[in-house]
Amino acid sequence: MSEIRQDPTTKEWVIIATERRKRPSDFMHRSSKTETVGFLRSCPFCPGNENMATPAVLEYITDSSKGGWRVRVFSNKFPAVTPDAGNFRKVEQNMFLSLDAWGHHEVIVESPTHNKHIALMNDTEVSDVLSAYRDRYTALAQTPNVKSIIIFKNHGLAAGTSVEHPHSQLVATTIVPRHMRIKYDVAISYYDDNSHCLYADLRDSELEAGTRLITATAKFVVFHPFASHRPFETWIMPLANQASFSQIGDEDMHYLAKVLRITLLKLHRGLENPDFNLVIENSPVGEEHADFYLWHIKIIPRLTETAGFEIGSGIFINTALPEETARFMRDVEV
Amino acid sequence: MSEIRQDPTTKEWVIIATERRKRPSDFMHRSSKTETVGFLRSCPFCPGNENMATPAVLEYITDSSKGGWRVRVFSNKFPAVTPDAGNFRKVEQNMFLSLDAWGHHEVIVESPTHNKHIALMNDTEVSDVLSAYRDRYTALAQTPNVKSIIIFKNHGLAAGTSVEHPHSQLVATTIVPRHMRIKYDVAISYYDDNSHCLYADLRDSELEAGTRLITATAKFVVFHPFASHRPFETWIMPLANQASFSQIGDEDMHYLAKVLRITLLKLHRGLENPDFNLVIENSPVGEEHADFYLWHIKIIPRLTETAGFEIGSGIFINTALPEETARFMRDVEV
Repeated sequence: MSEIRQDPTTKEWVIIATERRKRPSDFMHRSSKTETVGFLRSCPFCPGNENMATPAVLEYITDSSKGGWRVRVFSNKFPAVTPDAGNFRKVEQNMFLSLDAWGHHEVIVESPTHNKHIALMNDTEVSDVLSAYRDRYTALAQTPNVKSIIIFKNHGLAAGTSVEHPHSQLVATTIVPRHMRIKYDVAISYYDDNSHCLYADLRDSELEAGTRLITATAKFVVFHPFASHRPFETWIMPLANQASFSQIGDEDMHYLAKVLRITLLKLHRGLENPDFNLVIENSPVGEEHADFYLWHIKIIPRLTETAGFEIGSGIFINTALPEETARFMRDVEV
Repeated sequence: MSEIRQDPTTKEWVIIATERRKRPSDFMHRSSKTETVGFLRSCPFCPGNENMATPAVLEYITDSSKGGWRVRVFSNKFPAVTPDAGNFRKVEQNMFLSLDAWGHHEVIVESPTHNKHIALMNDTEVSDVLSAYRDRYTALAQTPNVKSIIIFKNHGLAAGTSVEHPHSQLVATTIVPRHMRIKYDVAISYYDDNSHCLYADLRDSELEAGTRLITATAKFVVFHPFASHRPFETWIMPLANQASFSQIGDEDMHYLAKVLRITLLKLHRGLENPDFNLVIENSPVGEEHADFYLWHIKIIPRLTETAGFEIGSGIFINTALPEETARFMRDVEV
């Protein structure tokens, strides 16, 4: 019997369509990535080609004798928002509100190696990537007018990138997404009713239920949420009560790197290198100490297309049962 | 200079990223559909194969001597919701609310011809399809427990369908999408402030601005909205003040058929048969007479992938300027 489930964080509905269900292994084989190569002459993200990109705003330099960088961050050459834009709101005919697309849009190159997928890095390399996220968050959060910072990664064509060299992106803007405010409304209402953080209670309920867990460590929990919007949607949540990823300490960062690497490696092996998006669901800037929110990492493998029903209703039809996909993922050996 | 624009109906933000802009003609060539054939022996939607589908709940019969149907509606063989489910809500651990996926999921086969795209039909044939939408809406709206009816069409692989034979779908459920309630909150607040319908004012502002118009007839207006989420997003709105598509009269239905056919034909010619979704944005069942809402048809060509940024922020990055795509569409001859 299919179920309609309510996402506790947004109150949106999700249809768990078991009548249309596929087996987890049916989602394999959509990858079209090439094998690992060390270096590509034509790739603007490869070492030696730094002049094809904009100047670095952050580099972690290797301590080996040959020098070079481990992680490199610079402005996106084709930015969605730019720091040289004004920051003015404009209203036309009382209907059309607009503002200039002010902000920062950065690229975080995760490795000097052209095709070293984050799933195949070691813990120190993954930790470098996460530290670069945090360092750039911290720097940009101090910039006037920055109200939200979205950190994300697109892996593969179906996930919206054509650039193979592993990289993440960061967009800092002067607007807080409506999406986030709607989630906040739900979280604040829950907090006011219960004196508890909705996200912490959700995490603890997933721990207690157990059926959708992938990994539970002393610091982080990984699971396929009850009302997963899409097959293999994966959340990584801290046990610490932190509203912002920027609050994470160096020691925890290393634990997070390990848990993220293992999660991505399980996906890589279990679904044969699927295309995916990764986003850090963070509090808005200046609201990092909210008691009613918990940052988390969301990983969305791009295995199915959204269609007219999702567009018309905002309700996702998920063709996989999270309890089944979680079991599948638990069984993938790493 | 790029702009961030606010969608007046949802208060969501959209980045009109002119730095990343493509020319309208750059969106061509993603089609992989075959040429029109009359009939496929293996297609469950082709005449003669009715026994491969479920029994018809509606058929428009042709008046020609050979009999047969023009449009045929039946239950989806792989439904997302089913009428034999219960309709019970269940709460686990105070966190996880679910209900059985009760409802109706129907397929509307638009033509007996295997590959007759709606863009290439005549006005009478399109009018049949729209009348079938309305007839099924009216029948299902009278069923107990039906609270919302989503009518949509997926055309092509990127739009989420692998079935070539032209068809639409209808999902009637006992839940009102949160998405719709959030839009309603915005519309009601506007109505209470202004004693006007937000959607009617929006339509009139688009008419007045003119730069994003495709067609304006005595009955319907077609435009690319100010804050289009995606390239070539197209809205068809009535001039009559109707909250529900089901209120449309027979005469207006014929006008709508003509305007829809021309809109889809322009897309078909201008972008060379792109994949697209079409949805009817309707009021919930029982709220068909609301003064603060106006039904409309939304057409979303699937030309670009959404990525991590959209998932993380709910903010779409649209790489086309609606004023440019609207001009491009006006210039496509039909």
